[in-house]
Amino acid sequence: MRAIITGGAGFIGSTLADFLLAKGWHVTAIDNMSAGREEFYAHNLGNPSYRFAQLDLKDARKVKDAFAQGADVVFHLAANADVKGGADHPTLDLHEGCMATSNVLEAMRAAGIGKIVFSSTGSVYGEPEVFPTPEDAPFPVQTSMYAASKLYAEGLISAYCEAYGMQAWIYRFVSILGERYTHGVVFSFCAQLRKEDRLTFLSDGTPRKSYLYVGDCVAGIWHGLQHAKGKVNILNLGNDEEMPVRDIADIVVRESGRKKGEIEYVLGQTQRGWIGDSPHIRLDIARMRKLGWEPALSIEQAIVRTVRWLEANPWALEGKYFRGKG
Amino acid sequence: MRAIITGGAGFIGSTLADFLLAKGWHVTAIDNMSAGREEFYAHNLGNPSYRFAQLDLKDARKVKDAFAQGADVVFHLAANADVKGGADHPTLDLHEGCMATSNVLEAMRAAGIGKIVFSSTGSVYGEPEVFPTPEDAPFPVQTSMYAASKLYAEGLISAYCEAYGMQAWIYRFVSILGERYTHGVVFSFCAQLRKEDRLTFLSDGTPRKSYLYVGDCVAGIWHGLQHAKGKVNILNLGNDEEMPVRDIADIVVRESGRKKGEIEYVLGQTQRGWIGDSPHIRLDIARMRKLGWEPALSIEQAIVRTVRWLEANPWALEGKYFRGKG
Repeated sequence: MRAIITGGAGFIGSTLADFLLAKGWHVTAIDNMSAGREEFYAHNLGNPSYRFAQLDLKDARKVKDAFAQGADVVFHLAANADVKGGADHPTLDLHEGCMATSNVLEAMRAAGIGKIVFSSTGSVYGEPEVFPTPEDAPFPVQTSMYAASKLYAEGLISAYCEAYGMQAWIYRFVSILGERYTHGVVFSFCAQLRKEDRLTFLSDGTPRKSYLYVGDCVAGIWHGLQHAKGKVNILNLGNDEEMPVRDIADIVVRESGRKKGEIEYVLGQTQRGWIGDSPHIRLDIARMRKLGWEPALSIEQAIVRTVRWLEANPWALEGKYFRGKG
Repeated sequence: MRAIITGGAGFIGSTLADFLLAKGWHVTAIDNMSAGREEFYAHNLGNPSYRFAQLDLKDARKVKDAFAQGADVVFHLAANADVKGGADHPTLDLHEGCMATSNVLEAMRAAGIGKIVFSSTGSVYGEPEVFPTPEDAPFPVQTSMYAASKLYAEGLISAYCEAYGMQAWIYRFVSILGERYTHGVVFSFCAQLRKEDRLTFLSDGTPRKSYLYVGDCVAGIWHGLQHAKGKVNILNLGNDEEMPVRDIADIVVRESGRKKGEIEYVLGQTQRGWIGDSPHIRLDIARMRKLGWEPALSIEQAIVRTVRWLEANPWALEGKYFRGKG
């Protein structure tokens, strides 16, 4: 089987590439390297089943050329990774999300590729009133440019399935943690602890969110692809638990070998870490569970693995990859 | 008060312009004339309170210039009017819907305009399972490029309200009928009857949809703007009734002074008039009713007015404006 993975040098995309290679698939990884890292795919470059192409999905012509070889499944994971930046760069998600997804779908249509897996987000539920939030929750109101662009991509993919007989697996993720994690709250806390005895929070520490280990995420993507048989399969991927940001800080401090009393917590003023951020995210995973999948790791276990990986790979915390506070 | 109306030379936009002028507003109508008609605004050209600008919303720079004068409210009604064409031109709605709306919002932000009214569509409910369909119906799966782009625009507008303190009135319309109606099922039936004793249906005649008179639509837009006070006000605009396409044909035949037995009905094979078309649309208008609005005309009355207007304005049925069958 042959896969094309967009965002293939990123956190989840590169982990998925390794997973599919281990299953005997041929993998073409595409990435514009805006957030991807060579360290995440360099080990595959000698593998005859692996090919990497640096490519921007906004360039429709080049995407068409790259897809012309064909594939059994396109895993479209590429997106603007700077979710927080929406309000500062309000057209970024239009280009990196909406236009890029349109280019991917047009290239699939031209190459006769019929199956697409898409990484959407629990943020499309806006600020839900039902917890855990199921896939058919009440029609939400969007709060961020990022989620609006993900919702458009979901809708466009569904429309392509309707119009051209494609089949789609749309996964709405909670925040993903684990090896190769390069931005987000745990990353930010680890980065801060390397520099000072103080953790500065974007929020007041109370937002409660759900997190999933990247290995569970990739296993879930695979499981849904094997077992969900609908035309458009919309599936939450998350964890039954949720955890307040403050508790995450406590675990990061402990796993970093520090004592809680040594570290000053500088809390923000509001419940929202950034404009459009939802202070409470926990997804109902009953659909995925019915298909036979469930997460193996708890949120705490996922945080521990993340901290250990960042400690073992301090280069990941350096330079241009540091994206501000948690 | 000052309004900017995008799609201001179109069916609903030009009717809204007349309505606002009658209320004493100053109106700037913007249209790229892809579906707009000079006949719909020519009567206002001598009015010092009215200004028309031919302009394509895809040109971000020109939109910014046109909005720089400021306004109290932007009524963003422009869109690709050829809903049926999505599967033939799958990137059209991305450009005419998503990008155009982004340009409108950026121009509003630059000019400090804080209020936006947006014409969305009942099609964003996909193929709903609840009738009449309320605004908070279960999170739908999209079936058309058109609806996906409208849903993106809704989400982007909501995100701008969240990020920049704007206020929005998002109306989800059923199909609109009345004077200046220039495409859709009644238009198609009238156009066909002028040429032959036969009506060719796109569907099998069974789709049941709701329709609203344009005067009720514009009054509803106005009423919601006056009375809905939320940050993001999402409101269905429709009619309690629904009507099968076959019954619409019967009314059009009768109002055209023909006898039903004289006209051959050539029915299509499927319930869907085109790819992505929803065979059943009826919206719950309880929210609007709670605000004090309800439609004055029945669907039948709206059809009768439409047929009479098309008969009195045969030029509207000619040439480039004919958009195929109903």
